[in-house]
Amino acid sequence: MAAEHQGREPLERIAVMGAGSWGTTFAKVLGDAAEHHGSRRSIRLWGRSPEVVADVARHRNTRYLGDIALPAAITATLDPAEALEGAQLVVLAVPAQSLRAQLTAWSAHVPRGAVVLSLMKGLELGTDKRMSEVIAEVTSLPAEQIAVLSGPNLAMEIARSQPTGAVVACTDHGTAQWIAEACTAPYFRPYMSTDVTGVEIGGIVKNVIALAVGICEGKEMGDNTKATVITRGLAETTRLAVALGADLTTMSGLAGLGDLVATCSSKLSRNHTAGRLLGQGLDAEAVGARMTQVAEGIKSAPAVLELAQRLGVDMPITAGVVAVLRGELPVGKLEPLLLARQLKSEGD
Amino acid sequence: MAAEHQGREPLERIAVMGAGSWGTTFAKVLGDAAEHHGSRRSIRLWGRSPEVVADVARHRNTRYLGDIALPAAITATLDPAEALEGAQLVVLAVPAQSLRAQLTAWSAHVPRGAVVLSLMKGLELGTDKRMSEVIAEVTSLPAEQIAVLSGPNLAMEIARSQPTGAVVACTDHGTAQWIAEACTAPYFRPYMSTDVTGVEIGGIVKNVIALAVGICEGKEMGDNTKATVITRGLAETTRLAVALGADLTTMSGLAGLGDLVATCSSKLSRNHTAGRLLGQGLDAEAVGARMTQVAEGIKSAPAVLELAQRLGVDMPITAGVVAVLRGELPVGKLEPLLLARQLKSEGD
Repeated sequence: MAAEHQGREPLERIAVMGAGSWGTTFAKVLGDAAEHHGSRRSIRLWGRSPEVVADVARHRNTRYLGDIALPAAITATLDPAEALEGAQLVVLAVPAQSLRAQLTAWSAHVPRGAVVLSLMKGLELGTDKRMSEVIAEVTSLPAEQIAVLSGPNLAMEIARSQPTGAVVACTDHGTAQWIAEACTAPYFRPYMSTDVTGVEIGGIVKNVIALAVGICEGKEMGDNTKATVITRGLAETTRLAVALGADLTTMSGLAGLGDLVATCSSKLSRNHTAGRLLGQGLDAEAVGARMTQVAEGIKSAPAVLELAQRLGVDMPITAGVVAVLRGELPVGKLEPLLLARQLKSEGD
Repeated sequence: MAAEHQGREPLERIAVMGAGSWGTTFAKVLGDAAEHHGSRRSIRLWGRSPEVVADVARHRNTRYLGDIALPAAITATLDPAEALEGAQLVVLAVPAQSLRAQLTAWSAHVPRGAVVLSLMKGLELGTDKRMSEVIAEVTSLPAEQIAVLSGPNLAMEIARSQPTGAVVACTDHGTAQWIAEACTAPYFRPYMSTDVTGVEIGGIVKNVIALAVGICEGKEMGDNTKATVITRGLAETTRLAVALGADLTTMSGLAGLGDLVATCSSKLSRNHTAGRLLGQGLDAEAVGARMTQVAEGIKSAPAVLELAQRLGVDMPITAGVVAVLRGELPVGKLEPLLLARQLKSEGD
């Protein structure tokens, strides 16, 4: 198998840029994986909050992960250059809409041969670009040095070592395998893929579908209704992904179906929560005011719809959610809209 | 569109054989559909319980559906011949393992040109046959007169008019469309398919996967874990279905993914409940004793595994569930088994 890695060295020096719940949790996965395999590894976590960075030095991130203990391999810094120095793998876990500005500021410090791995889920507003596309533009790295990771990955559950799967995608299979091996922990099972587009689209659109499912829940609809919206939502996600050149089967996997189901089931999901509030009759502004953290789906939904319209892809659930967010459709009118279409074959 | 119906008459006379929760609820869907479209329709519900039949005459099925009101078009009888007389559509909603005996007793009364629609989900023990295969054997009807319906269809939610989708499958598209039109109600949205095998396999295997998800829940695993088991469970279901000649895309639809997600989310699902009890450490016998109604997955799981082994299909989740049910695997050993396989590409 080593031959497939294109001679990459064992992964000993990693920078994780972003000390929120997912960045910190993935740093923990990388630390636990190294410990499990008896490997040496240094994981430097960059954060912008002095309190969080000081906390991580004591092997905690209380703000985001409560009393979970972090592995000894993790150190933290406020200095991006210090985090990035000598890193073989640069993991990006910042808010999707701030990626371009932050990565531009950091790019001079990203080591030339490093692989950049995105944990982010979102489309850039204005450009409708996926995170891997923004990374390619800003860093000029070749595709074989840009990877993404996605799946049913609610951070808090992984931090508690509850078992889950994920997908690591890179157009270069060897790079995906190198990363997958480096993050295989007893509770974390990565699969590999070369379908970067599909993996990213799954992670983006699921936030929009989770809003729709949350709306159904807010209106006290049952499990059939939610399962129908999940299924038809995955069907429209698949149509978009395939129009962008993704592989049909990616959407049936952990980064499509798996992530969607986890998000739509979880009380921890911000998008799901935001949808419930919309379903209870709050407007988008009131939902924003009520929530302490951003629901990415509220930001991404208009960009997803714009992308779909540009490609001529029919996405009725996304269109309905966007209309609700814009105040153009009362939330009570959304649900019949999702079901009341002409009788047709399921695959059409 | 009428031309595709092969000249079938409007659906005015229907027999529904089985007055349990799903049979009664589907009779209600058929009645509400006719009312919504302003059509005349007689729906005769056969049940074996005199109390239930007397109750339905008062437009209730209190035992199974509480205080839900049934449409005026529904009448009930204890006499199968009376229910079947002149029926254009015969809907079967009896326990899977009793189908062969009951249908054999009824078959002389099934009108020659009638279409038979199965609502049942299970494999016949001993023969490993699907319900449509049992129907074909017992009635000698041609394939274009045998149809199946499946989807995210928890009966109680549909009885409460909560919106959902479903799939009607028949090798003859016109027959599927005729049935789909006849059961389209404001809250019930059927899609059409010609993939009878795929639709049935989705409904059978989901009960086994729901047991596995229930086990995870009984062991207090999180939403990531459950979403991972659902995703990998659908992947092994798809492998089996494709080996049996089904269409890959059926499993991504309402009869595959949709039904699986609804079952695994619902506190109403018997299979899900049985799994939770197994996860809490009860053995199969104790679970059976605790539950008033049968969990079909407990019966079907060994038949599904046998079918998979005969076809050379790898179904690790099903195999794990069967081993737990047989008492060969402690439930605590199931979950690592589901994740601890060699690193590989997701589609493999």
